[in-house]
Amino acid sequence: MLIRNVRPWGGDASDLQILDGRIAAVMPHDPARADDGSSVDGRGRLAMPSFSDVHCHLDSNRVGLPFRPHTGRPGVWGLTMNDREHWREDPPVAERTTALLGRMIERGTTRVRSYAQIDADSGLERFEGVLAAKEAHKDRAEVEIMAFPQAGLLLEKGVPELMDQALASGAAVVGGIDPCTLDKDPVKHLDIVFGLAEKHQAPVDIHLHEPGHLGVFSTDLILERTRALGMQGKVTLSHAYELGNVDEATTRRLIEEFADLDISMATIAPAQQMHALPLAELTRAGVRVGLGEDGQRDYWSPYGNGDMLDRTWQLAFTNRYRPDELIEHCWAVASRGGAAILDPSLERLTSTADRPGVSVGDAADLVLVDGDTVAAAVMDRGTDRTVLRAGRVVADQLQLV
Amino acid sequence: MLIRNVRPWGGDASDLQILDGRIAAVMPHDPARADDGSSVDGRGRLAMPSFSDVHCHLDSNRVGLPFRPHTGRPGVWGLTMNDREHWREDPPVAERTTALLGRMIERGTTRVRSYAQIDADSGLERFEGVLAAKEAHKDRAEVEIMAFPQAGLLLEKGVPELMDQALASGAAVVGGIDPCTLDKDPVKHLDIVFGLAEKHQAPVDIHLHEPGHLGVFSTDLILERTRALGMQGKVTLSHAYELGNVDEATTRRLIEEFADLDISMATIAPAQQMHALPLAELTRAGVRVGLGEDGQRDYWSPYGNGDMLDRTWQLAFTNRYRPDELIEHCWAVASRGGAAILDPSLERLTSTADRPGVSVGDAADLVLVDGDTVAAAVMDRGTDRTVLRAGRVVADQLQLV
Ligand SMILES: [Zn+2]
Ligand SMILES: [Zn+2]
Repeated sequence: MLIRNVRPWGGDASDLQILDGRIAAVMPHDPARADDGSSVDGRGRLAMPSFSDVHCHLDSNRVGLPFRPHTGRPGVWGLTMNDREHWREDPPVAERTTALLGRMIERGTTRVRSYAQIDADSGLERFEGVLAAKEAHKDRAEVEIMAFPQAGLLLEKGVPELMDQALASGAAVVGGIDPCTLDKDPVKHLDIVFGLAEKHQAPVDIHLHEPGHLGVFSTDLILERTRALGMQGKVTLSHAYELGNVDEATTRRLIEEFADLDISMATIAPAQQMHALPLAELTRAGVRVGLGEDGQRDYWSPYGNGDMLDRTWQLAFTNRYRPDELIEHCWAVASRGGAAILDPSLERLTSTADRPGVSVGDAADLVLVDGDTVAAAVMDRGTDRTVLRAGRVVADQLQLV
Repeated sequence: MLIRNVRPWGGDASDLQILDGRIAAVMPHDPARADDGSSVDGRGRLAMPSFSDVHCHLDSNRVGLPFRPHTGRPGVWGLTMNDREHWREDPPVAERTTALLGRMIERGTTRVRSYAQIDADSGLERFEGVLAAKEAHKDRAEVEIMAFPQAGLLLEKGVPELMDQALASGAAVVGGIDPCTLDKDPVKHLDIVFGLAEKHQAPVDIHLHEPGHLGVFSTDLILERTRALGMQGKVTLSHAYELGNVDEATTRRLIEEFADLDISMATIAPAQQMHALPLAELTRAGVRVGLGEDGQRDYWSPYGNGDMLDRTWQLAFTNRYRPDELIEHCWAVASRGGAAILDPSLERLTSTADRPGVSVGDAADLVLVDGDTVAAAVMDRGTDRTVLRAGRVVADQLQLV
């Protein structure tokens, strides 16, 4: 099978030969090249690695439903309760998660780490909804589900047991959240998280909104446990707003420890931190960084639309990146950066000049999209996209219009 | 003439009667209502006030040209020189500015304050290009041109004289820039700016990128001259990054002085300030605030696309606004907030709940756009837009596809 007339990472017009779901050859484009009739016409578009959304909450989304004015009260607890008071008014979780995942795939995402909220109110209902979405799209995207204690592990009864059940029933990752500010007992919180990880031999991903040196304190507790339990390479920090927003020496120390313990990071490219996550420094240190969309038009926030290319623009914008190399690096992070979090055996980015994913031997997980250059494509965010997973077309925007 | 079946600011389906370019009546939508055959079918879309872009650089843009990798060196001077070294390689200024202005109108902007760079290198060539764009679209948008000394007033010879010529030839506003950090002689810089303003009886608009208390120092010099010369209501500060990023007492004092002297503000909704411009506080104090797109895909930066609805999203995003009232306020700022800068006789916003521009008596300067609600429209940024100026359709996206 051939993908004809595409420009890998903005390079020369090429034909890609696909064998067993992988790129077997990258050849100069030749309009006369023979094929077996099953080729994809790239029409001169860019061929880019497909996106990996490593931090999203499929189960909370209201994308595509009538818009609902925001009624959240401030803080993680206020927003969690806003969701709790209303989510049963919406269509079933399986329906909403399946719809959003489909939309994400259409826009170029083929790898997802989705949070599934586990709490005393919803039990395993949300988790099961995310499982259903994963099943519905199993040929189109790879979905890893995290059991996520959104309302804490200690504040309400039975949550660790529900987490345990989810991990025995298809959840692949143990989530944690703000060990100090939510449960207010960081040691107990982390003991449960790492205890479940040990029991289920599962990786850990911790939501860390805590600011400044409080975030550093929680991070240090996490690092200590990662080292003690030999969980190198199996821990992800999400958000970690403190990084870059404390003194430079502390930021440098944390980056070195992340590299040493192979801690990975997920960012959602938020607005209005004093400094964005130090993306280039993390990459150069060999720390795996991925991008995610977080909640999408849900009870938490009206932002987010299932489009990782929009979010890639946001990553560039919030970093104030202007040089093309750095804007292109945002795509590398949003695609292969995240892929290496979900599958640590994949090659990782170590330089902002790395342009992985569209070479001989790579899985043909691709987005074809308009753009003079990659940076131009990030700025333009064109909607004419063709999405391939393992060499098979899983979405073609043109056919959807 | 009727605009049928629209929802003003997200309200009930209505028919708007237009007389002499103004809204003469807002009536419940009635499919059977008779008209003279010249009605516009709103198809249930929102009817919103059209946008006012109060800070853009039409003359530097490369929108629609082949994408050019960023080659700018850091700082205002480095970026100015990057532009100077290359801008003559592009099509004539008149052609580029006319194209971008057309694109901005198609997306809903009917009022513009555009900077026109005046420097020793380009003389009046850029200014004349912006004049040509203004003339080309004179029936579709109102354009006010600022004579802008991008490379300073003192560093190169003859710039004040060129500014003087531009102001005698159609420029309506005197620009200034970073009095301390660029010319490094704030008193001389401001004496020239305010001297030209006095001579031409023109308002002043000063680009202020200076950080922290340096920005406060320059601002105080500007306030002093505004008061001394009786220029209340005729001075705009653009960017003013220092506001909200110094101590709260200083921010409060500045907001009070802005209100007292009727200083207006233009923001471009930049990324990664510790705090965004304190929009709600400024509005409540009665300070006129408008939104602009700044440079658009130029030698300064690849961002910007001629779409003020995108920029309205950016204003909401960088402010981390979630409540619908505040997101809607961003549209009010981007439309009527800016309009009151360009025409101080227009009603100003004094509350984040103000929803001006689509009531009986208002000029029928409108954008019709899809959206369950206004906040949803800001999030979705739909492309099906109909743009009216003084009751006349000046762009209809559907006809362009
Ligand atoms: Zn999250
Ligand atoms: Zn500017």
